[in-house]
Amino acid sequence: MPEIKVIETVKEMQSWSRAEKTAGRGVGCVPTMGYLHEGHLSLIRECGRHAQSVVMTLFVNPAQFAPHEDLARYPRDFEGDCKKASAAGAHAVFYPSVAEMYPQGYQTYVTVEEVSKDMEGEFRPAHFRGVATVVLKLFNAVRPEFAVFGEKDYQQFKVIERMVKDLDLGIEIAGLPTIREPDGLAMSSRNVYLSPEQRKQALSISRSLFEAREAAQKGEREVASLIKAAVKHLVEAGLSIDYLEVRDAETLEKIERIERPARMLIAARVGPVRLIDNLELVF
Amino acid sequence: MPEIKVIETVKEMQSWSRAEKTAGRGVGCVPTMGYLHEGHLSLIRECGRHAQSVVMTLFVNPAQFAPHEDLARYPRDFEGDCKKASAAGAHAVFYPSVAEMYPQGYQTYVTVEEVSKDMEGEFRPAHFRGVATVVLKLFNAVRPEFAVFGEKDYQQFKVIERMVKDLDLGIEIAGLPTIREPDGLAMSSRNVYLSPEQRKQALSISRSLFEAREAAQKGEREVASLIKAAVKHLVEAGLSIDYLEVRDAETLEKIERIERPARMLIAARVGPVRLIDNLELVF
Repeated sequence: MPEIKVIETVKEMQSWSRAEKTAGRGVGCVPTMGYLHEGHLSLIRECGRHAQSVVMTLFVNPAQFAPHEDLARYPRDFEGDCKKASAAGAHAVFYPSVAEMYPQGYQTYVTVEEVSKDMEGEFRPAHFRGVATVVLKLFNAVRPEFAVFGEKDYQQFKVIERMVKDLDLGIEIAGLPTIREPDGLAMSSRNVYLSPEQRKQALSISRSLFEAREAAQKGEREVASLIKAAVKHLVEAGLSIDYLEVRDAETLEKIERIERPARMLIAARVGPVRLIDNLELVF
Repeated sequence: MPEIKVIETVKEMQSWSRAEKTAGRGVGCVPTMGYLHEGHLSLIRECGRHAQSVVMTLFVNPAQFAPHEDLARYPRDFEGDCKKASAAGAHAVFYPSVAEMYPQGYQTYVTVEEVSKDMEGEFRPAHFRGVATVVLKLFNAVRPEFAVFGEKDYQQFKVIERMVKDLDLGIEIAGLPTIREPDGLAMSSRNVYLSPEQRKQALSISRSLFEAREAAQKGEREVASLIKAAVKHLVEAGLSIDYLEVRDAETLEKIERIERPARMLIAARVGPVRLIDNLELVF
């Protein structure tokens, strides 16, 4: 297995990236919070198909967690992550400290207004401000030509896509389909929080999504009907729903009928564990 | 007089800048809203001492004007500005349209929190959000290694300096002293709004600043006394004061005594014309 280069400062990251470009290698970036699963690895592999030099960033970003959220206990495995990233084809890991990213006196934040407004934005008010800010900073450190994100965090993907366009960053952004366990559960670093019983209940999320997709494929156009069926399924499984929406797949605007590409998006809690998932509704 | 290159799109600006760098020329940037006076020209000349390729940006940025402000009547003279910029040593003018900078669906904004909070931030609530956003976008178009701003907009200079540091833009930022008319009035594109009578009243602003500096040089340390004298001067001249503050010159935090570099900052209205000015208080 090749050695992976670990970079801990912004300055070193910027000069490493500059050297790669000078050597004629395009730089790609895969931002992560670590504790890698197959979903992350699929992003690293895809990045390697677009860029000769692949940087995975690993930073658990305090700015996107609210005080009551799981920042302190967010799962971590730096050694394991380096091995997995390297095996998947990453050449460097950008692994800055919190003090490196947010030194004393730090006070600059990026907001992407419309697309951040509801769903995750409603239930986690400063979340996307933290995400947009850290991704801009990671991009300014890595200076990639290409970056790839998982569609599991679909609203986040749309926030970043919009920011990159609005700020003229000149970075090509790709979204990759969610990687799932054999039974359909979306892979997530947070699945480690689930008890065996909760793990079974959590399956109702992906099942609701696949049922909605099937209903849409069979001709159901009414968003209200699709939502009603999915809510019933989740409630019967004992989940507590934060939101369950069908939205325009591009703008995330509310829609009443499925007449263009749409997406069902769910956030629900199984006991104390909050999970999100989403699926394209094909028609 | 050399021809000046006029560039109207972000894409063309980015590739022009890339070509300059490839040719071994460092790129410097002077952001302006046009209607150039000697203050702007001093910035262009200074930029030419630090960078081989000098880009002046000329964009009257709607995002930094409130609805009741002077966006529509802000003075403009594109032809004259190009001639003056060229004569001062600029090689290119980046002159984008509003639709080029803020296309349909635009929704991303940058805020620099602490340093934007009061003074101009209090009287012009979304102003610095608009400034930080447009300067980041201009930098992402021009991609300079060096940029220069006038200290006449001192709080703005501090907002930009902080943003560049926080977002790891890797751009060296310089602030240049305010250029004044022979009688002391700070040069400003908005001085054109002043009637001859208002022009005389407006002089009380710079006079208050110079008196405060002299008092500080002679040993006055109490901020309250310095402010009291300046307020008296402005009120006697018939000005209406938005704010008159003495602040830490670096952080812009409130101070009670002058024990480190400090700055007096004034915003006041002469009839309908709002003017700002500031001066370092040497001690």
